[in-house]
Amino acid sequence: MNLRIRGGQKNEIPVGEGQSILSALKAADIYLTASCGGKGACGKCRVKLLDGPADITGFTKLTREERNSGIVLACRTFPKGDVSIEIPETSRIAVGEKIALSRAENLLGLVSAMGRQIDPAVKTVRLQLVPPAIGDNSSDLERLKGALQAAGQKIAVLYFPHDFLTGMGKVLREAGWNVEFHYLIIEKDGLTIGKDGAAGSAVAIYPQSGPKAGRYGVAVDIGTTTVVVYLVDLADGKLIDAGSTYNSQIRYGDDVITRIVHATERGGLKDLRQCVLEDINGLIDAISQRRKLDTKTVEMAVISGNTTMSHLFWGLDPASIREEPYVPGVSYFPFWRGADSGLSMNACGALYTMPCMASYVGGDIVSGVLASGMTRKKEIALFMDIGTNGEVAVGNDEWLITAACSAGPCFEGSGIRHGMRATEGAIESVRITPDMEIETGVIGNNGAALPRGICGSGMIDAVSEMFLRGIIDRKGGFNLYLAERDAHGALAKKLRAGEDGAEFVLASGPAGQIIALTQADIENILRAKAAIYAGISALVKEVGLSMADIEKVYIAGGFGNYLNVERAIMLGMLPDIPREKFVFLGNTSITGAYLGLVSEGLRREAEEIASRMTYMELSVSPGFMNEYMSALFLPHTDSTQFPTVEKLLKGIEG
Amino acid sequence: MNLRIRGGQKNEIPVGEGQSILSALKAADIYLTASCGGKGACGKCRVKLLDGPADITGFTKLTREERNSGIVLACRTFPKGDVSIEIPETSRIAVGEKIALSRAENLLGLVSAMGRQIDPAVKTVRLQLVPPAIGDNSSDLERLKGALQAAGQKIAVLYFPHDFLTGMGKVLREAGWNVEFHYLIIEKDGLTIGKDGAAGSAVAIYPQSGPKAGRYGVAVDIGTTTVVVYLVDLADGKLIDAGSTYNSQIRYGDDVITRIVHATERGGLKDLRQCVLEDINGLIDAISQRRKLDTKTVEMAVISGNTTMSHLFWGLDPASIREEPYVPGVSYFPFWRGADSGLSMNACGALYTMPCMASYVGGDIVSGVLASGMTRKKEIALFMDIGTNGEVAVGNDEWLITAACSAGPCFEGSGIRHGMRATEGAIESVRITPDMEIETGVIGNNGAALPRGICGSGMIDAVSEMFLRGIIDRKGGFNLYLAERDAHGALAKKLRAGEDGAEFVLASGPAGQIIALTQADIENILRAKAAIYAGISALVKEVGLSMADIEKVYIAGGFGNYLNVERAIMLGMLPDIPREKFVFLGNTSITGAYLGLVSEGLRREAEEIASRMTYMELSVSPGFMNEYMSALFLPHTDSTQFPTVEKLLKGIEG
Repeated sequence: MNLRIRGGQKNEIPVGEGQSILSALKAADIYLTASCGGKGACGKCRVKLLDGPADITGFTKLTREERNSGIVLACRTFPKGDVSIEIPETSRIAVGEKIALSRAENLLGLVSAMGRQIDPAVKTVRLQLVPPAIGDNSSDLERLKGALQAAGQKIAVLYFPHDFLTGMGKVLREAGWNVEFHYLIIEKDGLTIGKDGAAGSAVAIYPQSGPKAGRYGVAVDIGTTTVVVYLVDLADGKLIDAGSTYNSQIRYGDDVITRIVHATERGGLKDLRQCVLEDINGLIDAISQRRKLDTKTVEMAVISGNTTMSHLFWGLDPASIREEPYVPGVSYFPFWRGADSGLSMNACGALYTMPCMASYVGGDIVSGVLASGMTRKKEIALFMDIGTNGEVAVGNDEWLITAACSAGPCFEGSGIRHGMRATEGAIESVRITPDMEIETGVIGNNGAALPRGICGSGMIDAVSEMFLRGIIDRKGGFNLYLAERDAHGALAKKLRAGEDGAEFVLASGPAGQIIALTQADIENILRAKAAIYAGISALVKEVGLSMADIEKVYIAGGFGNYLNVERAIMLGMLPDIPREKFVFLGNTSITGAYLGLVSEGLRREAEEIASRMTYMELSVSPGFMNEYMSALFLPHTDSTQFPTVEKLLKGIEG
Repeated sequence: MNLRIRGGQKNEIPVGEGQSILSALKAADIYLTASCGGKGACGKCRVKLLDGPADITGFTKLTREERNSGIVLACRTFPKGDVSIEIPETSRIAVGEKIALSRAENLLGLVSAMGRQIDPAVKTVRLQLVPPAIGDNSSDLERLKGALQAAGQKIAVLYFPHDFLTGMGKVLREAGWNVEFHYLIIEKDGLTIGKDGAAGSAVAIYPQSGPKAGRYGVAVDIGTTTVVVYLVDLADGKLIDAGSTYNSQIRYGDDVITRIVHATERGGLKDLRQCVLEDINGLIDAISQRRKLDTKTVEMAVISGNTTMSHLFWGLDPASIREEPYVPGVSYFPFWRGADSGLSMNACGALYTMPCMASYVGGDIVSGVLASGMTRKKEIALFMDIGTNGEVAVGNDEWLITAACSAGPCFEGSGIRHGMRATEGAIESVRITPDMEIETGVIGNNGAALPRGICGSGMIDAVSEMFLRGIIDRKGGFNLYLAERDAHGALAKKLRAGEDGAEFVLASGPAGQIIALTQADIENILRAKAAIYAGISALVKEVGLSMADIEKVYIAGGFGNYLNVERAIMLGMLPDIPREKFVFLGNTSITGAYLGLVSEGLRREAEEIASRMTYMELSVSPGFMNEYMSALFLPHTDSTQFPTVEKLLKGIEG
């Protein structure tokens, strides 16, 4: 049996008896959005069935309108013969997302501002070996060790990996015994430690003469959604190039839980590891080719990701992460070697993984706290990273407490009917005029076509504006009376009865297509914002403080580029404190990885941050559930916590 | 085109245009003896051409008789169409040689006699980990580290290889957090060293409950000709089983030089490494199956071999070994892991390689000196290992000097027309009666058939007996006058004119087939014995001693089982000192590997032995060439060095 795809690059692919369309497409490397991992729950993997017989076992989240037009869920549709389909653009996973590299130039400045120099763990020394002679016929390796000693290198113990030695003899002779030796040197870690001075591991050796070999490093941020790679010259710390791509583990589900479930299935862990390895290697290879450098010159990598991503990258079973009491396999990762990882880099190169403090507070948060500098100052700061999950940390140079909010991936589009990530075609900002006219900002669309969906910052804007205009009440319920009262006005067209009950139309096309928020969508958004606010609140109370004591708020993650603080406060997601306290940091996971890559001192600082963190498990915290219930309101049941919002609302109502 | 093989297991194999018969046979896994590596020089790869057209480009070392009967050299014969051949048994490489395991039971006694206990570098400790709980959610690895600390394990730094951690979480949970932890612990090495106490590397982890996992080790002797494996229970040091096979690198040539040359050819190093790996793995797998144990329980291996074999095993370029000034790539090998080696063993298991002191004094000699115990006593001892090369060491508990004699592989059959290894069908002893009748001892043949050839001990017997009976003179030249004088006697039939000049027939078959020694063979044997004696003599003189000062002679290697000391002294190969000083040790390379495997103290002792050895490069020693020239005579130009031989000769002559 065959599956014909109209308008696609691949016209016809095979499909087996009992195989779903989603599975057949996957096998042909065509990936659809499937937040639930293909379990018929998210309603995202829509395709249009044009022709041919098929068993359809479910229509979750499809409107009658959609069903009538032939839309089916690819994961619930099983061809019984040759079938033709069309894949709407909105169902395809977008690739090649642009990342904001504007901060890249500031990276060197950041290192310097943190009082550190470029001093990576992989170092280089020029050595002149004594050439062998009759009567002095000790081995090549003993000669290298002797030259290191003569050069005054205080390396108590140096490990020579097998891969390092296989090509050494040739290099030594070609070099006339004058070489540049590259080696990892660390002062404290699971790999090696010396009696006097430091210890390390050999990485590479090159002739002194000839073209300079170079010594590069990669900083890698493995997000649940996006993978980012920075290629850095380890000699001067300069960012050479960067690249980003979707984490192709997405094909197995949007969030860490779905991935952990897949990992525990037969061969799943291997699949997931392979996915992210290929993503990262694709970026390293592309950058290396563009910059005309051999990936063997990539001698160090620092990996930063949440605990699940870090485990999957290393092929470590993540099962215990989702089982009470939520224990990861490894928190402080040993320095492993390139060959252990499968990365496109020197086999003897060093890999450091940012420590994962707890199952839901990972290396990305340690990176973020490091990059924020909050643990170096007296002022009490709040760090929050709103990505696929939502982690928060509160502290200063003396203490640090952290928690994971379980906000869920709703701000990345999951669980929202027209939700999507912050990519081209997403509504990223919404304003509703007093006349109930809607103004939307769409990413890279210029208003030309119907937007593809709505992303996190758009949701925050939309819900807070709807609240401000009285379209929803404090519980998030639609004010249907308001629409009725104005039956012929602008509102009636927008606040209408849809398939799943009432819905609010944010944008519509000429053929009746719409982008709308449903009552269920709004409830999901309120649950997410409540989880975040309650998490912050619980942490602050745990240390005996109030929101007013927070002197700085660092906001990291995808939101960093779009979030409207005023609207997020009105929503009750962020605390109602002076706006000048908020600082946007962008992707701090990659920044922290960069810092650990170029400065051994900062890498050690990251380890210290992890060891100083106190983790608070919110799911068993007695106060958290109350905090959460109160935060489900707009902005909050305790109006005194949101004085400026209340003042604004009173101004409108009054 | 096809090659038909009469009487073989494979009847027909393909052969390409321009491909030699040797090469076609190799490709079909049929191996012939080819000491020269198939270069048309050794004359060993004889096959009988029965039928079909072929280009023949050389007949080196074939007699006219042989040529007339259709014998060709497989390496010099290129079929031009379908060809039929027959492979004589003597051309095939024999496999499955039996090894003398009689000493195996004495191994434990040897450890104890050396004042050591069974104390391998891979140890085990039972640990009770604290199970995780809400509020105590540190990672599995941190829990393991904590339990080690609580158990009072003084391990300053413990490295956790990547492979170790991939399965740990599952084991911990299945075990209910009560585990048996296996780890490598060393006090001094390239791998790790601790600030306080020792350092090590994790190897394996098992539940305490359930069947006992076992902890095994393998001692491996990689000889140029033979590979021997001992499987040992690391808990009590008992030898569980052993196996041996030919080193299949033989297909690329008999001696280390031919192998080094092959290694420098395209892909050659990889081939050679693969050969010996498959040989060793074949033995480990066979033994493991027989003993019903999982190769994952093989947690340590000690490799002992000459410098070239050690380099080839690890895939290290051996080129510099044969280039002046003869420098190996590595002498002290780091502890590498199972995964680095490709051995059938635990990927995290530890591999130690006996140190290779110089290019031609390798780990096998360090093993031998260790096993002999000569460096623990005041008495001055001579250690000699006559294998494919011929290494000697002289010393005691205070000093140790060593040299390689370049005796060549003649005692293993190479360069001798009917020479062969000491396997079934080899003449291993020869006695010539005053009536010129010849009595031969043949290995495993019982005199039933014509012997296949003559091995080293047979050569020594034959030449010394020929000398004793006046058949050859002091220079090794045939006494043709003696045969002429006795034209109708027993001698005339034996000392006859052959294709390559005079030859002495040791055995003959009914169809005129013979086993004989030619003038060239005798010259080769004299050169080999002269190299050995001159080496010993040069070493002894270097330290200001004379042969009479040697209080003990340890003889190791294949000869250990067959050599007739009296005859070897008469030949002038061994010094003419009291016979009770000679001790046969058999294969000391495997014994030394065993000792290093079961006792960390003895492994360190081997390192100390290597570091104490003074290496003497004979090829540049001013006295050596004179010593060698003098030793080319029978027994020696300086008759005072062989008083008992001279006395015996005088008795016969007088």
